[in-house]
Amino acid sequence: MPELRKDPITRRWVIIATERARRPSDFARPPVVPSTNGSCPFCYGNEALTPPEIVAYGRNGAAPNSPGWAVRVVPNKFPALGIEGSLDRQGIGVFDRMNGIGAHEVIIETPDHTRTLAMLSEEQIELVLAAYRDRMVDLKRDVRFRYILIFKNHGEAAGASLEHTHSQLIALPVIPRQVSEEVENAEKYFFEKERCLFCDIIRQELEDGVRVIAQNTHCVALAPFAPRFPFETWILPRRHSSCFEEDSPEVYRATASMLRDILQRLDAVLSRPPYNYVIHTSPVGRERNEHYHWHIEMMPTLTKVAGFEWGTGFYINPTPPEEAARFLREASRTVAP
Amino acid sequence: MPELRKDPITRRWVIIATERARRPSDFARPPVVPSTNGSCPFCYGNEALTPPEIVAYGRNGAAPNSPGWAVRVVPNKFPALGIEGSLDRQGIGVFDRMNGIGAHEVIIETPDHTRTLAMLSEEQIELVLAAYRDRMVDLKRDVRFRYILIFKNHGEAAGASLEHTHSQLIALPVIPRQVSEEVENAEKYFFEKERCLFCDIIRQELEDGVRVIAQNTHCVALAPFAPRFPFETWILPRRHSSCFEEDSPEVYRATASMLRDILQRLDAVLSRPPYNYVIHTSPVGRERNEHYHWHIEMMPTLTKVAGFEWGTGFYINPTPPEEAARFLREASRTVAP
Repeated sequence: MPELRKDPITRRWVIIATERARRPSDFARPPVVPSTNGSCPFCYGNEALTPPEIVAYGRNGAAPNSPGWAVRVVPNKFPALGIEGSLDRQGIGVFDRMNGIGAHEVIIETPDHTRTLAMLSEEQIELVLAAYRDRMVDLKRDVRFRYILIFKNHGEAAGASLEHTHSQLIALPVIPRQVSEEVENAEKYFFEKERCLFCDIIRQELEDGVRVIAQNTHCVALAPFAPRFPFETWILPRRHSSCFEEDSPEVYRATASMLRDILQRLDAVLSRPPYNYVIHTSPVGRERNEHYHWHIEMMPTLTKVAGFEWGTGFYINPTPPEEAARFLREASRTVAP
Repeated sequence: MPELRKDPITRRWVIIATERARRPSDFARPPVVPSTNGSCPFCYGNEALTPPEIVAYGRNGAAPNSPGWAVRVVPNKFPALGIEGSLDRQGIGVFDRMNGIGAHEVIIETPDHTRTLAMLSEEQIELVLAAYRDRMVDLKRDVRFRYILIFKNHGEAAGASLEHTHSQLIALPVIPRQVSEEVENAEKYFFEKERCLFCDIIRQELEDGVRVIAQNTHCVALAPFAPRFPFETWILPRRHSSCFEEDSPEVYRATASMLRDILQRLDAVLSRPPYNYVIHTSPVGRERNEHYHWHIEMMPTLTKVAGFEWGTGFYINPTPPEEAARFLREASRTVAP
């Protein structure tokens, strides 16, 4: 009998196929392997092919837009939103529009074209997280922005248009619906129970154990109870923390370690799959609160979203999270070459 | 300058790229063309390869599960939900689950493997719509069901696992979030204005004209103001009608004609693209109301949904609907071979 499960954070129902559960080998597809490519705008020596950099790490005093960096942040050459101008909110009869004001940046995670994020050292991933934080803190000074989203598309099937490993940041003048729903539901839960919903979930999951994939001093990685996608994985700080960009060095270190761990497990179990991840944190101006809990949502691209999902907002997930967690827990992690 | 637009029905924001707008030729991909395939379970003579049929049309008295039908409805061989059992709603700590009770049926739109829905006659498409209606009316007698969704996946990229043209129906024990949001927003609008939001949109669009693709006596096809996807197209009855399955023969006839028209325009402009469509109607038990307006949402599969969309519920659409509507309006429709 399939099961309907409701995610308490988004209040989204999903259908979990418990009988014909699909195993990792059912999702076979070509692995995502970066080629060696001389003309990549994210490689050393090609810095002039991107817009002038916003910030770079590890270059030790050399000139901007020259080689030698470890992590480099540049504006997206084809931004989805424009940084210049005013919002100019407007009604057109029943409709509402505003200018597409925002920031769209690219975080180049390493100069090495042949490595994926999973292959980087913990220190390098920490530097990537520091770049996320620094850009968020900087952009939050712009009063036009209400939310700053960090996300990563890895592999063409997951929407990456360049294969050199990178993340993206979009600053938005509105709070995206998915985030405001999560925040509102967490607020309602807190109002009723005076406890953080995420903290309650973490406690229950650690006691139960069946959906826990890995844990370290400061972080836990879970297969969520009602995942949209097979092998969807969340990374959360174990102690209550509402705001990614204001967390402590210890938590960043533990997050970098956990991110690397989980990416290597996904690579091992699913043969280097394409994937997306996003960081969900509290909206700008309401960073410190008792109800919301920042986290990373990772979604390997294994199934196709089709008419049913578009029409309902419901997802059909052919792999129960308990199965996915078991495969990922038991995975022997690959070590970066 | 890109534009942020808000859909008044879902309250979803989308980013519309107005500068580097992508034209139909930018979405080039192989056309969806059914092959001739002898072992298809949806072809004449292979009726035994599907579960026993629920209903068939046009067979004129011949035995069930034999050839001679024009439209045939069968249970999905690999259903996402099971028809037998009770819901057994349950809480597990902070989580909620219930048994995956529901119906999952397949509507085979023609016995001809080589034709797509766009190539069928208006009469044949009318018969497909009649099958949708009959199945909805029948399943609504089951008190466990709160919503019945009709959807179609056309082409592998749009999630179709069999190429023989077919639609699907899923009966659900909960109202899907996307539908309840639309209904709630329409209800709020009606409460405030005492007018149907959809009727207001239709009126404004027909006056404005710029996003109208086609119209006939009873239906209009629009590029919505804030579409998620390039060339997204909605078909709506022109007069207020809250419930698809209780509409009149004239409206079904006009809808069949419009559906064929739009599918042929999409085929002509986008070279036979993969696509999804869904029918949104009022939830079970609240069929007749003044605030909701049934409609068909059609979405060609041209872009990839990636981290940004998963993380926000926001969509980036590279083709303004005004451009899409113009291309579709000016399309010379292909005539079925």
